[in-house]
Amino acid sequence: MLDGPLDTMIKQLASLPGLGTRSARRIALHLLTRKDALMIPLSKSLRDAADAIKTCAICQTLDTADPCRICRDPARDRATICIVATVADVWAVERTGSFKGVYHVLGGVLSALDGVGPDQLTLSELVSRVQEGHAREIIIALPATVDGQSTAHVIADRLHGLPVTITRLAHGMPIGGELDYLDDGTIATALKSRARV
Amino acid sequence: MLDGPLDTMIKQLASLPGLGTRSARRIALHLLTRKDALMIPLSKSLRDAADAIKTCAICQTLDTADPCRICRDPARDRATICIVATVADVWAVERTGSFKGVYHVLGGVLSALDGVGPDQLTLSELVSRVQEGHAREIIIALPATVDGQSTAHVIADRLHGLPVTITRLAHGMPIGGELDYLDDGTIATALKSRARV
Repeated sequence: MLDGPLDTMIKQLASLPGLGTRSARRIALHLLTRKDALMIPLSKSLRDAADAIKTCAICQTLDTADPCRICRDPARDRATICIVATVADVWAVERTGSFKGVYHVLGGVLSALDGVGPDQLTLSELVSRVQEGHAREIIIALPATVDGQSTAHVIADRLHGLPVTITRLAHGMPIGGELDYLDDGTIATALKSRARV
Repeated sequence: MLDGPLDTMIKQLASLPGLGTRSARRIALHLLTRKDALMIPLSKSLRDAADAIKTCAICQTLDTADPCRICRDPARDRATICIVATVADVWAVERTGSFKGVYHVLGGVLSALDGVGPDQLTLSELVSRVQEGHAREIIIALPATVDGQSTAHVIADRLHGLPVTITRLAHGMPIGGELDYLDDGTIATALKSRARV
């Protein structure tokens, strides 16, 4: 039934994360009934974004400028580098509006299972950056998973001997969290790191 | 943080059915790391499909040709018209390979809640088609919901007096279904319409 341009489009949509053939077909029909309002504008914005978005040579985030706006912003504190796994994590921290330093996007975390070794990450770029630069504090903001923690260890190892303080995000109860829904590890960590009120 | 082309693209992706801001951001990052392999080809295929896909003037399905391939196919039986709600339903029936007639896409079902009246559907096109044509059987293949059933009643009403047999899809247990997971209505219908083995 399907052929040519429609089939190609549905296959490409189905390859996107979180989508499958069924949802891709649903999206294709939604687009085809809104050609001028959505389908052609989306085609254009995909092309525009593909042309405009670059990887920042300093922090490896994505932006329309290289170096990115954060790295060029004179108001940001270059002495504090926050290490995150992905560009999505940069956006997540930026949305909080509570961080005024700069970033370093690792490109993932080490994972024996997924075959991600140190060479697939921007570890050596990080080390050079710390060696050259004016960094005083490195905040490790990697996922609180086994892979994230072993990556944090490797980072600490690589930066050993350099004149920087290495910190990590606090562990504990999420704001709005309920004890009954938290896993044991989080409760145990929150208890251990309890603070005076 | 986000701006210009990236922001536009994420907003458009987030407006697609089944997607939200978070999944749109995830898809945007996936695309931006695969510009040549996926992002630019997807932009192109959206544009190509928007240009190539038309609505068939006879059955209202979507195809690269008008009349569509099904309506033009001399091997299809024009005397049997299958009425479906959407183009996705045409594709679903075609995937089974077990229907050799032609279709009529209603464009939805009547719904007081969603404000869909007879004028939003292709009911009058269906009536003219049956009046002019060589149709002998009309198979109603609408959703087995209250709205689908009331739409089926309206169709039967409109076609009253015309020399066609009106049938509907059988109700019963889905193939592979387990009794324990079926709703009471389906079990009751399947019992009532039981067949000799």
